[in-house]
Amino acid sequence: MDVISTASEQGVTERRVDFPGSRGTVPGIVWTPEDAAGPRPVVLLGHGGTQHKRTPNLLALARRLVRHLGYAAVAIDAPYHGERVPPDERGEDPAARRARLGVDEWRRRIFGASEHMVADWRRTLDAVQTLDEVGAWGPVGYWGVSMGTRFGVPLLAAEPRATAAVLGLGGVGPEPEAEAFRAAARGITIPLLFVLQWDDELVERERGVALYTAFGSAEKTMHVNPGPHVGIPPHEREEFERFFERHLGRQPAAAAAGPA
Amino acid sequence: MDVISTASEQGVTERRVDFPGSRGTVPGIVWTPEDAAGPRPVVLLGHGGTQHKRTPNLLALARRLVRHLGYAAVAIDAPYHGERVPPDERGEDPAARRARLGVDEWRRRIFGASEHMVADWRRTLDAVQTLDEVGAWGPVGYWGVSMGTRFGVPLLAAEPRATAAVLGLGGVGPEPEAEAFRAAARGITIPLLFVLQWDDELVERERGVALYTAFGSAEKTMHVNPGPHVGIPPHEREEFERFFERHLGRQPAAAAAGPA
Repeated sequence: MDVISTASEQGVTERRVDFPGSRGTVPGIVWTPEDAAGPRPVVLLGHGGTQHKRTPNLLALARRLVRHLGYAAVAIDAPYHGERVPPDERGEDPAARRARLGVDEWRRRIFGASEHMVADWRRTLDAVQTLDEVGAWGPVGYWGVSMGTRFGVPLLAAEPRATAAVLGLGGVGPEPEAEAFRAAARGITIPLLFVLQWDDELVERERGVALYTAFGSAEKTMHVNPGPHVGIPPHEREEFERFFERHLGRQPAAAAAGPA
Repeated sequence: MDVISTASEQGVTERRVDFPGSRGTVPGIVWTPEDAAGPRPVVLLGHGGTQHKRTPNLLALARRLVRHLGYAAVAIDAPYHGERVPPDERGEDPAARRARLGVDEWRRRIFGASEHMVADWRRTLDAVQTLDEVGAWGPVGYWGVSMGTRFGVPLLAAEPRATAAVLGLGGVGPEPEAEAFRAAARGITIPLLFVLQWDDELVERERGVALYTAFGSAEKTMHVNPGPHVGIPPHEREEFERFFERHLGRQPAAAAAGPA
């Protein structure tokens, strides 16, 4: 794990790092409390399609988790996103690029990148747990909606270190090719908070509800709100924070001491 | 409004009162902070079928709202419930009584009591707003699931003083006789938190989701959890409290001053 740069602002230290991924370097960010010492919970933040590791909603959530709960947070660029945009597509507006490629090609790319992204996330977690300020003892959470759920479902089915997750803006249909995704959802048994937008133009209600129903978790809550895909109401941000606090605990103010 | 008895415990004053209802006296309870002076938000608490005005979940919620937010809370016995059980049915276990009457007769009673209950609630609110510790300026909330939603929907459609409500464990079907209920739901436009149990043996999923969808409110959130009708997970109680805090405000610690 190579630290490219470090900056601290209002109690949050942000490190731009290169993680050793499954097929070469994966650009990422680690956020920790400025005075952090010793292990603490860490939340992996999966960005959405056309977004990147430092997209505004991820950055805001990372800072919340660090400032309010004393957690660490980590984000990486997904394949075809952020610093991993193919060289001949760089500089193009992400939404325009998606429109040019077409929905089918875009989805083919994303679905095809799933195994790769899961491997990258697991290696990222290996690396970040070697940090003194994170450690390997602590609880691990995952947050990712839309494409972050597309990758999050197979990740959570495969990765036993994650013990609570926020997912959403995703669904599953009756098509045979969706069976692997549905099976992964069934295999998830950790506490989940799943958010759906009731007027989502990209995710049909029935598919979203079907994904919630498929999860194997005994503790799973679905929060539905009116509005389009990009439009989760601000009060849900507080819910994300409280969900993680409830399931991963709050890092004691005296963060120097590890687990006895 | 006749005060029958008063008792204070751990900062909460509980008054057993008789409200002037639409067809005679309605037995009720008013909870306020022990040192309350001046107006504050008030939440009307609608109990479920076979329950009563001081059923444990209502009592716990009332105390929470008083202690944590400085609110007033009010509950009344619904027709056929609590002290309003018909004389020849008193002493019988409520669940056994429902079983003996049969589901159809039970529902006929409840549905038939709706207009009566709405009128009782409105008169109760008139009366409680004459109290110095409640006043008429303050925000009014409603909380009621199951039968509390059966009565709450027509109440909220009719009563402009209520500005935020928690509903749940209720649904609406396609039957023609459900049209008035659905129309009332459409007429509600205040912020709502609606809770559903995904394995509810009394409310079909589709009917619950249909009721959420029908509400006319621009701000409405549905919280879905696995489990049976009686089984809302404890963490939702915190959500109820935060929902009211967000929409009705928090009563300042110095409760003596009214609104300037």
